[in-house]
Amino acid sequence: MKLYEKLADEITEAVRRGVFAAGERIPSVRYASQQHGVSIKTVLHAYALLESRGIVETRPQSGYFVREAALQAFRPETRLPGGKPAPLVAPVAAEVDVSRLVLSTLRSIRAHDAVPFGSPYPDPSLFPWRRINQYANAIARRQASWNLIDDLPPGNPELIRQIARRYAENGMPVDPGEIVITLGATEAINLSLQAVAKPGDTVAVESPTYYAMLHAIERLGMRAIEVTTHPVDGIDIDALAQVIARQKIAACMVMPNFQNPLGFQMPDARKRQLVELLAAHQIPVIENDVYQELYFGETRPSTLKSFDTQGLVLHCASFSKSLTASYRIGWALPGRYRAQVEKLKFLNTLTTPSAPQVAVADYLRQDGYDRHLRHVRKVYRQQASIMTALVRRFFPAGTRISTPQGGYVLWVELPERVDSMRLYQAALARSITVGPGMMFSTRNDFRHFIRLNYSYPWTAQSEAALKTLGELVAQMA
Amino acid sequence: MKLYEKLADEITEAVRRGVFAAGERIPSVRYASQQHGVSIKTVLHAYALLESRGIVETRPQSGYFVREAALQAFRPETRLPGGKPAPLVAPVAAEVDVSRLVLSTLRSIRAHDAVPFGSPYPDPSLFPWRRINQYANAIARRQASWNLIDDLPPGNPELIRQIARRYAENGMPVDPGEIVITLGATEAINLSLQAVAKPGDTVAVESPTYYAMLHAIERLGMRAIEVTTHPVDGIDIDALAQVIARQKIAACMVMPNFQNPLGFQMPDARKRQLVELLAAHQIPVIENDVYQELYFGETRPSTLKSFDTQGLVLHCASFSKSLTASYRIGWALPGRYRAQVEKLKFLNTLTTPSAPQVAVADYLRQDGYDRHLRHVRKVYRQQASIMTALVRRFFPAGTRISTPQGGYVLWVELPERVDSMRLYQAALARSITVGPGMMFSTRNDFRHFIRLNYSYPWTAQSEAALKTLGELVAQMA
Repeated sequence: MKLYEKLADEITEAVRRGVFAAGERIPSVRYASQQHGVSIKTVLHAYALLESRGIVETRPQSGYFVREAALQAFRPETRLPGGKPAPLVAPVAAEVDVSRLVLSTLRSIRAHDAVPFGSPYPDPSLFPWRRINQYANAIARRQASWNLIDDLPPGNPELIRQIARRYAENGMPVDPGEIVITLGATEAINLSLQAVAKPGDTVAVESPTYYAMLHAIERLGMRAIEVTTHPVDGIDIDALAQVIARQKIAACMVMPNFQNPLGFQMPDARKRQLVELLAAHQIPVIENDVYQELYFGETRPSTLKSFDTQGLVLHCASFSKSLTASYRIGWALPGRYRAQVEKLKFLNTLTTPSAPQVAVADYLRQDGYDRHLRHVRKVYRQQASIMTALVRRFFPAGTRISTPQGGYVLWVELPERVDSMRLYQAALARSITVGPGMMFSTRNDFRHFIRLNYSYPWTAQSEAALKTLGELVAQMA
Repeated sequence: MKLYEKLADEITEAVRRGVFAAGERIPSVRYASQQHGVSIKTVLHAYALLESRGIVETRPQSGYFVREAALQAFRPETRLPGGKPAPLVAPVAAEVDVSRLVLSTLRSIRAHDAVPFGSPYPDPSLFPWRRINQYANAIARRQASWNLIDDLPPGNPELIRQIARRYAENGMPVDPGEIVITLGATEAINLSLQAVAKPGDTVAVESPTYYAMLHAIERLGMRAIEVTTHPVDGIDIDALAQVIARQKIAACMVMPNFQNPLGFQMPDARKRQLVELLAAHQIPVIENDVYQELYFGETRPSTLKSFDTQGLVLHCASFSKSLTASYRIGWALPGRYRAQVEKLKFLNTLTTPSAPQVAVADYLRQDGYDRHLRHVRKVYRQQASIMTALVRRFFPAGTRISTPQGGYVLWVELPERVDSMRLYQAALARSITVGPGMMFSTRNDFRHFIRLNYSYPWTAQSEAALKTLGELVAQMA
């Protein structure tokens, strides 16, 4: 193949892949000659070939542009309407890779506008995005160049102060010097786990447990041991004590408030008991408290952290459920492991982007957060009732439903014969997503359970979707 | 202690720590009563006590506010002027923890306005931050709520397209479907390494090597083996071949373009040779190409990726050196390991924040990037010459200097008797930072080397600082 043909083929391929879009200019002849290390004549020859293929056109004094009609030359099925590349939705195999299943569910919601009962995230339209946009906008107007070193770990000082202030307001004094800002609670949990345990170690978790905890354990080459967890009281402390007596446990990971998927709020006495049991064995505990502000009761629930006297609780949280998910602002209060977590943050992602940190700090400094949260809590409480009532109406006998004390998910036990993976597939074919129960365990438990998200506003479409789900369940039961 | 005293003490402590700042309102009596689970009377009692201590004052119809004078009650040395908490600068011990040393250097620059010769980052004032701010601003005005799932891994589709377009323009066609957006190159390198090697594995690196590579290897429980690296030609391929013949190497990590700290550009023939050697043994190679756009020659240098026929090159890069550091936008082109890297990204940090991705995509869609880069390259080339000339003038005989082909750091070999850790300490005492050579190896090599950053504009102060450094070196030699 000649040089000019090779260059023309490269550009053709780039257009086919959408790298150069219709109407966009391709590199100038001089620039292409330099960067590809070929003569001007070769580039001119290549561009003429592209013109003859109908891929580009010249515009006087401007250069070469991708023709609007260029894409017609290519197979249509690789592109969605609107010219966007087709999403890379991975097919879900029988032997399920849970993280791939989660990602696939999310992509289905995006690509096919599927009903988001399977989403783990809150409805973003409930976030106070107008206000947050105002702060982001003001920052872009006032801030000159950002210096990376201003907000290095532990993070932006004003954001750290505002987070500490929020805890103080909620009756849980914390030392701002303990806070490490992370990229969402996801990173906080990963770093905390790495700070306290090493590959090969065993980590005790709830059962069912939030799958991101299982992923973190698996990814770091550790083993999870699942401990029976009560839908109202939380992790079974006697069962945990027996596990600890039997084998070496490097750490424990729990979600004492509005656990995903069970929705319970662990009673204070049990939180204290859990902290004391673990302290007696000097076992660190990672407390995932991301739903802390989404309580249905009168006040913010207590935390394991508030009962901790030995610095063994690594408390992780974020604003992703209550304020803004796409800003990715989370934090850890790592107790005696603070130095390790801060160092791991530095090594893992260097630092969390500055502007989102400052925008959230600015938002918190004003006094609208409480008002926003009161509204969100009310909405979630109402929507929990509506969804519970409708599941009761549409689903067959033998269905049992959790009673969440906060957060935005229901845990639904289906008649035993129903396989929730089959339900997942059948629902997806009808543009409805659900969270299959087997995601929440490594033991193939909970196959006849599903998790349903009720954060989205209730519509005729979602009501019809829930009815369809109920019918599918009835057929499978 | 009585309940009201306990509450008053908690708030006093929060004020001392800066959680409630001077002039800020503390929680209302009703809210505090709810959240602390005490009576209204107890809160009133506690607040009266705080008033008598001079910590808060009442304002009619508004509530209780922290007094401007409240801070005088506390020890002054825990606070800097301006009320900011003192930075947590860790003392550097004799047995050096390299990541702590790096972080400590950066904090010194921030806290004490030290001369930033020791910084690994480029001068942020050279970034086109006015333009980027405009895009960030426009996004905040046009965008409604952000949906987390829009930009899930692999990342924002338009940003991915723009990155692929940039490669295509530079004569290196890539498949946009291969790109995974990360939080800076730091995360890209960490995920790539985890995708190809496991704890206990051995990874071959250059010597000297960029310390973040060593950190990634150490953090994942792997072992680094350091291979002699030539200041002009790059890693010694014969030496690497011998290492491979002797032991199992799980992966190789290199920086073929403008290596930090040596600054070389590996010749094309050697890049090809390296890729072929590794392909013959099916060893994946992580290519750190963060300085790709900061070349001093005529055109963008080739990459290992461009010689890869087997998908064994995991190419990592970012905009942090060339466009904006605080946005933290990096990416990986992981070859045959794409699915693993995408999944690890999802598990590690879920997703990169949306707004910075969109702002960078918007910036790239316009045509200012090349003009900006031409300017930056010219500045760095000039500043490299100036610093080289001044090191020659100020430093004693026996000093040798690298000849960087791009990037913004010089590698300086000092007379053999000079201990660069002692130099680091002595310089820091004079508010000058340097990068001690032992950071770039785990073998205690390079003790008489330092790395100097020349990205900052040359001033009388920096010239004086370099003169001081030269004098310190002469004293120690």
